[in-house]
Amino acid sequence: MSKRPRQDQTDQAAPEPRGSRRRRRTRQSLLDAALKLMAERGLEGVAINEITEQADVGFGSFYNHFPSKEAIYETLCDEVFERFADAIDAQLATLDDPAEKVSVALRHTMERARQHPDWAKFLIREGFSERAVSGGLSLRLIRDLDSGIHSGRFRDRDLLMQFLCIAGTTLSAMSTQQHLTRPASPHSLLVQARQIPTDHLGERLAETVLISLGIDAAEAAEIGRRPLPAVILHSPDKD
Amino acid sequence: MSKRPRQDQTDQAAPEPRGSRRRRRTRQSLLDAALKLMAERGLEGVAINEITEQADVGFGSFYNHFPSKEAIYETLCDEVFERFADAIDAQLATLDDPAEKVSVALRHTMERARQHPDWAKFLIREGFSERAVSGGLSLRLIRDLDSGIHSGRFRDRDLLMQFLCIAGTTLSAMSTQQHLTRPASPHSLLVQARQIPTDHLGERLAETVLISLGIDAAEAAEIGRRPLPAVILHSPDKD
Repeated sequence: MSKRPRQDQTDQAAPEPRGSRRRRRTRQSLLDAALKLMAERGLEGVAINEITEQADVGFGSFYNHFPSKEAIYETLCDEVFERFADAIDAQLATLDDPAEKVSVALRHTMERARQHPDWAKFLIREGFSERAVSGGLSLRLIRDLDSGIHSGRFRDRDLLMQFLCIAGTTLSAMSTQQHLTRPASPHSLLVQARQIPTDHLGERLAETVLISLGIDAAEAAEIGRRPLPAVILHSPDKD
Repeated sequence: MSKRPRQDQTDQAAPEPRGSRRRRRTRQSLLDAALKLMAERGLEGVAINEITEQADVGFGSFYNHFPSKEAIYETLCDEVFERFADAIDAQLATLDDPAEKVSVALRHTMERARQHPDWAKFLIREGFSERAVSGGLSLRLIRDLDSGIHSGRFRDRDLLMQFLCIAGTTLSAMSTQQHLTRPASPHSLLVQARQIPTDHLGERLAETVLISLGIDAAEAAEIGRRPLPAVILHSPDKD
């Protein structure tokens, strides 16, 4: 919707005393550790002491920051889905064409997934959860789809399925992007054996999705390959 | 490829002594229990004693059937992905049109998912794993895509992305089908609020996928709604 200023955490606006900075760093270490572990094994597969060990923090300090394992998981979901959706939205605000909006959103998502494998794994693991499909990332995708359908830019057919197609294809492309980072993985060997190109997955994802929305194939390829504006996505690791 | 006879478990062809039948029933109870639990919580989130409790079987008998938790998980993957792929393949053998093959395969998958929620949850959870994307279900889908592209039936663009689109859209449609069984779920409320129809997801999945493969929209809708031959899919629960 409207562009938002980035300092949405109001309690961090003033110069920060040292203790508070340390406290914030510890909290972030716990979040990074939980993201890594829960991306691999889910909420149920991870114990609090594993999180504190991975974060190199005393077991007791966990409870200075989060009341429970469920609470840190909620915070992760919020960062991975909601704050990422805010960041993407800020990028899309300057664009008018719904097709370009979809393309830029998907390519940024793939790029972030490439740079942050734990984030990507978490998103893949939780991407079909009720929370994800009913949350901000989904609602904004539906909003952009809707506006493209109303303006006549996208084919007017089955909004739910078009949404599921975009969401599912993106998750599967992210997952493949991860498998392909290991050259000897079964997936890598399979595509090598068939001489299937594996580069530019973000561009190709955008192209494929745009075609499925009714954009002419040549135009979809052109939109998918436009230079992507260099952006600073809000990274939960860095604040 | 070729149609296969259904009795692929040769050791079950002769009349079966009572002890062996009981043994087989116990093994199946363990598999059903593991499927249910691992669909919810994955391999890591489930302990052997939970499987035996759920199956109402003594802890020690587990090891008469499976050497480890990993072994029962392997067997489940094999049933959910490989034997299901065999069953689908047998259904497709009588069809010539690659578009109809894809449609029938996807609709059978959605129908099975509707009838067997644990099976569907397991497939959704493991669907992006390396094993799944490199296994028989994927290889056969790639084969059918390939043949449709070569015959000119499907648009000749980016086989990998077309595969990822079909696989991802199917998983997300299965997942939505599950969320929608609970009328008060966030997903159900969301689609109700927008008056989005939620019936005939299998037909609509087939239609959407065929459009993305380059089939004309009206023809895709017609193929997706053809009467589905009544079939007996090989069910791991029943043998």
